[in-house]
Amino acid sequence: MILPTEKSSFHAQHSAVGAHSSFTLGMHGAPGGLALEKGHPAAGAVYVGTIVDEAITVFPFFESKQNSEIARFDHQNQPETCHDALTVLGAEDFTRDYRFASDHFITEDIHFEVITPFGELPDPETSDDATNRQASCPVIFARLTVDNSRGNRPKTGLFALGDHGCPMPIHHPGTFTGFLFNNGEMGFATSTPVEPLQCFDLSKAKKPDGTQLVPRFGGSYGFLMEVPAGETREMLISLGTFRKGPATLGLEMQYWYNRYFSNLQEVLQYSLDHSEKYLEEAAKRDEELDSSDLSDPQKCLVAHASHSYYGSTQWFDYSGKPFWNVNEGEYRMHNTFDLTVDMLFYEMKYSPWTVKNVLESFVQHYSYYDSVRLPGSKTLYPGGISFTHDMGNHNNFPPQGYSSYEISGIDRKCFSYMTHEQLVNWICCTGVYVAQTNDKEFLTRHLKTAKDCYTSMLHRDHPDPAQRNGVMGCESSRCNGGGEITTYDSLDSSLGQARNNLYLAVKSWAAYLALHHLFSEAGESLLAQDAMESAHQCAKTVSNRWDDTLGFIPAVFEDNNQSAIIPAIEGLVFPFAMGLREAVDEDGPFSLFITTLKRHFNAVFKPGICLYPDNGWKLSSTADNSWMSKICLSQFVARAILNIDFGDKQIEHDSAHMDWQIFGATFNACSDQFSSGKAMASLYYPRVVTNILWLSESKMSEEKSAKSSTAVSGKVPAFAER
Amino acid sequence: MILPTEKSSFHAQHSAVGAHSSFTLGMHGAPGGLALEKGHPAAGAVYVGTIVDEAITVFPFFESKQNSEIARFDHQNQPETCHDALTVLGAEDFTRDYRFASDHFITEDIHFEVITPFGELPDPETSDDATNRQASCPVIFARLTVDNSRGNRPKTGLFALGDHGCPMPIHHPGTFTGFLFNNGEMGFATSTPVEPLQCFDLSKAKKPDGTQLVPRFGGSYGFLMEVPAGETREMLISLGTFRKGPATLGLEMQYWYNRYFSNLQEVLQYSLDHSEKYLEEAAKRDEELDSSDLSDPQKCLVAHASHSYYGSTQWFDYSGKPFWNVNEGEYRMHNTFDLTVDMLFYEMKYSPWTVKNVLESFVQHYSYYDSVRLPGSKTLYPGGISFTHDMGNHNNFPPQGYSSYEISGIDRKCFSYMTHEQLVNWICCTGVYVAQTNDKEFLTRHLKTAKDCYTSMLHRDHPDPAQRNGVMGCESSRCNGGGEITTYDSLDSSLGQARNNLYLAVKSWAAYLALHHLFSEAGESLLAQDAMESAHQCAKTVSNRWDDTLGFIPAVFEDNNQSAIIPAIEGLVFPFAMGLREAVDEDGPFSLFITTLKRHFNAVFKPGICLYPDNGWKLSSTADNSWMSKICLSQFVARAILNIDFGDKQIEHDSAHMDWQIFGATFNACSDQFSSGKAMASLYYPRVVTNILWLSESKMSEEKSAKSSTAVSGKVPAFAER
Repeated sequence: MILPTEKSSFHAQHSAVGAHSSFTLGMHGAPGGLALEKGHPAAGAVYVGTIVDEAITVFPFFESKQNSEIARFDHQNQPETCHDALTVLGAEDFTRDYRFASDHFITEDIHFEVITPFGELPDPETSDDATNRQASCPVIFARLTVDNSRGNRPKTGLFALGDHGCPMPIHHPGTFTGFLFNNGEMGFATSTPVEPLQCFDLSKAKKPDGTQLVPRFGGSYGFLMEVPAGETREMLISLGTFRKGPATLGLEMQYWYNRYFSNLQEVLQYSLDHSEKYLEEAAKRDEELDSSDLSDPQKCLVAHASHSYYGSTQWFDYSGKPFWNVNEGEYRMHNTFDLTVDMLFYEMKYSPWTVKNVLESFVQHYSYYDSVRLPGSKTLYPGGISFTHDMGNHNNFPPQGYSSYEISGIDRKCFSYMTHEQLVNWICCTGVYVAQTNDKEFLTRHLKTAKDCYTSMLHRDHPDPAQRNGVMGCESSRCNGGGEITTYDSLDSSLGQARNNLYLAVKSWAAYLALHHLFSEAGESLLAQDAMESAHQCAKTVSNRWDDTLGFIPAVFEDNNQSAIIPAIEGLVFPFAMGLREAVDEDGPFSLFITTLKRHFNAVFKPGICLYPDNGWKLSSTADNSWMSKICLSQFVARAILNIDFGDKQIEHDSAHMDWQIFGATFNACSDQFSSGKAMASLYYPRVVTNILWLSESKMSEEKSAKSSTAVSGKVPAFAER
Repeated sequence: MILPTEKSSFHAQHSAVGAHSSFTLGMHGAPGGLALEKGHPAAGAVYVGTIVDEAITVFPFFESKQNSEIARFDHQNQPETCHDALTVLGAEDFTRDYRFASDHFITEDIHFEVITPFGELPDPETSDDATNRQASCPVIFARLTVDNSRGNRPKTGLFALGDHGCPMPIHHPGTFTGFLFNNGEMGFATSTPVEPLQCFDLSKAKKPDGTQLVPRFGGSYGFLMEVPAGETREMLISLGTFRKGPATLGLEMQYWYNRYFSNLQEVLQYSLDHSEKYLEEAAKRDEELDSSDLSDPQKCLVAHASHSYYGSTQWFDYSGKPFWNVNEGEYRMHNTFDLTVDMLFYEMKYSPWTVKNVLESFVQHYSYYDSVRLPGSKTLYPGGISFTHDMGNHNNFPPQGYSSYEISGIDRKCFSYMTHEQLVNWICCTGVYVAQTNDKEFLTRHLKTAKDCYTSMLHRDHPDPAQRNGVMGCESSRCNGGGEITTYDSLDSSLGQARNNLYLAVKSWAAYLALHHLFSEAGESLLAQDAMESAHQCAKTVSNRWDDTLGFIPAVFEDNNQSAIIPAIEGLVFPFAMGLREAVDEDGPFSLFITTLKRHFNAVFKPGICLYPDNGWKLSSTADNSWMSKICLSQFVARAILNIDFGDKQIEHDSAHMDWQIFGATFNACSDQFSSGKAMASLYYPRVVTNILWLSESKMSEEKSAKSSTAVSGKVPAFAER
């Protein structure tokens, strides 16, 4: 969508799929550019614009080297050439059109696009080499179009990077002109006929004669494209990264693209030779979002989330098998499970094989069995299987069964274990994956794990079956006397404590339903029945926690907690996504539970409780700490599942959240964790793609109006169809 | 040598041979640590010290995170543990002993050493695998000894790095405990029994119990060693770097060590298993310098230069053959030829095969043939062979026959061609290499090149043989109308202009003598005779340039130049190093030339001309720009060849130069280019190892007193014996 001028300055990640790289730009006067395996924007400069005679005009995609003046570089001690200083465009001089798979910066005579093709990612194990090669090629594109159709003097189109390190220039005119840097791990190239440029100072971007203007250690380099008067010309640039060979420790892996390319020059050449397919795919995505009936702020948030998601992705080759990893934004933790479960809906739409892949990695490498204890007691009881919080960080994979995050001996504070939550996450992801794909082979192979999961759920409720109520009541022995937390780790106990937590209880209900479905599909009808029984037990416990005095369900079922939390409703998304629409029907088998949660939501979703003054959503009444991904998810649940209509207020919520990203996280692209609209953690983050769910809402409303609202059960729901 | 307290704070590079890495530390309160392929110090922290009860005492090898207070880290928002703040030792609390291959920091109970073994580097093509493996293993060592012999409470020895990126911890107690980071490209390990430590904040360096204290993304990590009361214990740490596979572009090469090791863990394990040999070698070097009769400032300068030299070295494998590269310090240009020729003496002492290797790389990849023109004319005449200024930069190798530095169209300013100087450099290096090694095979193979060099020298003098005077008079066609420069590129014309330059003329004389020697050895007596004739012509021209009015020889033989320069005498070093002692004898065949140069030196070496007020040497009377490497070289020539005795003043010169390094280049380790004692360019530089020549002076003086001063001709001179 076209951004209003005052909202046009913010960083977006432009990232190839699975390469953990990003060409980040968009914030005015800020550093950015191309980076590989980095949890924040590059510290470089991007120079894009035109040269007419000796006047150089560029977009503001760099930081002034003298902090004071962005528009003028120092000419002192710079001999010979005599160009005027750079003219840097201001926000009012150009228009930004931010789309699903592209980002456009437009003046009267310049159109600069950054294009990030993505779409259905083929399953590498069932695709041929050509498909794999194309899908894994670690590139994105930029296109600079200079319109000189009404001009009477030649113009020169300029694209260059600065402060990206000393490059290796390669110049085969009209075939491949490019610069590789960082030991050939990053680079860009074009097959458009251009003149390569390398200089110390962009203010001398034009070459005085046919000779090399500056030594090969000039830190600004790129392309000059002549555009004669009366013509319009464009150059297409491929920007890529390449890590050759082993890229990780602990589990030794290389990037999947190593199977198809032996170096970056090959990557860039291939992408230029096959650009048409990539550009088509990007255009298809742009159209997909454009044509949806989402509001502009919603479109912006969906596009923004997707842009940052890919920057965190890593598609590895582990002993000949694909290994999918999504890094945790700035933290670069691997496949953090409480992110996986939120990004599930995005991956089910574009790459269901990555969901399966990550679930299997957890089973194979990052599951463990523990004991449990009741709070206040040291007696250990049988526990069961669970999964680690993550699979390491910064390309380092920890030993079997250990995360990089969780440590022992902490009582319900940051860095404690998330044993129960990750168990629930594996079950919910598996439920959705199996329901939507009907992958019987997967289900059969992991039935033992599913059974273990059920046992583990029960054991974590209470050692005595008679005292179970469907809600987590025990702590893992891994805590070494401390207590577990949830993904809302830096929040107060309203969302941070796992035990007896409303948010986690509803997710546990979803997990029991998922187990019911899995056991049913596998023909384990007795277990299925038990799991359904557990779900009912859990639903009943939650419903019974309604507090008439408070007028809502308190966040934690102990210690007289009185916090009001929105994510009470979060767990409803899983049965819904599994097609178990009866389960979430207000008139269905969980009628009291569902209606109570709806009452809860309506009660807490009020200014001063769970709504910020700017109309942004506040997840907990007692903490100024709101996660954008979770807001997006709860919005979907409220609208699509609980049929709550926000009416005219909807656009105000969306606008507030768009402003959080643009003004509260300007430098850090899509970010997740906000305090009063300011991003304060979880920056440069992949998780916000939960909002892909919104795209399914328009389809659903069509569906609803087309036919009666009969619940569909056990089948892939319409919104997940691809 | 033991450094006085006020001179103890400066960075030293501690580098493995050929790995282009450095563990840089020594400057108080400054960032440092381990870096790979970097032209400046790492931005990390190094924590070394002891913990007693909860008091942590460390050396000041890190920068305070709050710029204001180095001694105290913020405890806010840091839960649980309760250590006192760090106590950071001040300069007065410890003693630094800076040696050839080690660097010691000593308190009453802590002795911390950084040990960088080096010595005779075996020729890889004639050495067995075991020798190669040991020589190329990319490690250095650190040793922490904690003396608790008089203590009555246990102490804990601490070694940790901070701000080096998220690590992969590996812990096999007593065998291998280590941390790998930067994707396994850097790391350190010990086989001493220690507890691994990882934390966010060093103020909580002690683990409260047996569990992992912090998540695996804690940014400070290392080792804790328990030292019971009454005991003294030490831990030996190996610090290494490892780049797997292709490391360069243009010429595709990998580090030589890839032949013997497949990853960093192997490297570290091997070095710990074989530490004894390495430590012996380092001790031998320490003894070598300690036992010399150099003054303390001289020893400091020799050690400091050697430390920085190795940080710039890269030992590559180019298609199965060794390829030696010395990076140009902060600029990271490859085998910059005007550095090679100055580092020649160091490499002839420790690794003559690298001299041969680089000379051959120049012939094979970085030689070219040009035309020449007379100043002021566009007519081209035959030129001849020469060599590029460098072989690229930042691991990028330019196309055949081109450097990364030289560009066309510049007239006697920075970045112009150095065609004549690099021709002279190839000849002088080859002369010294052949004379000292008697490598007939090399001479025979490159005789054609040597002949081409002679032709090229003549052509660059004057197109008309009758008008030749032995001095460069023509400009290379590569300059495209401009004029050539010398290695003193950023100086005024006194040393910057190549044509008719006194400094280069004397070096040309040396080149003619070297050609004479080479041709003689090859049995080409006619050519030898011609070359000797050229030398005499050159010597005569230079002698005739004595200016009675000025009282010295002006730096440039044109434009009424009146600059006085010390490097007039520099070229005398080559025949001397070749053993051609008659040639530099005041009573020898070049008597007038030698005595005139000596008169010149004595005339200009005066305060206000070529001497700074602090007794530092000023290379040119007309520019405040002095290169330390060249000062060291000219000092040697003055003392050892021209027999000038600086008497009591010698120590004042040396002290001044030591102060330049310590106070003028504190952060940048050994640096080369100084303005009034402040390093302003050529930082973190390898070239200052010219001062290895000083080590030979004591031997020579023994020699002189032992026998009469009969000139030795055509043989390896004593000072180059190893």
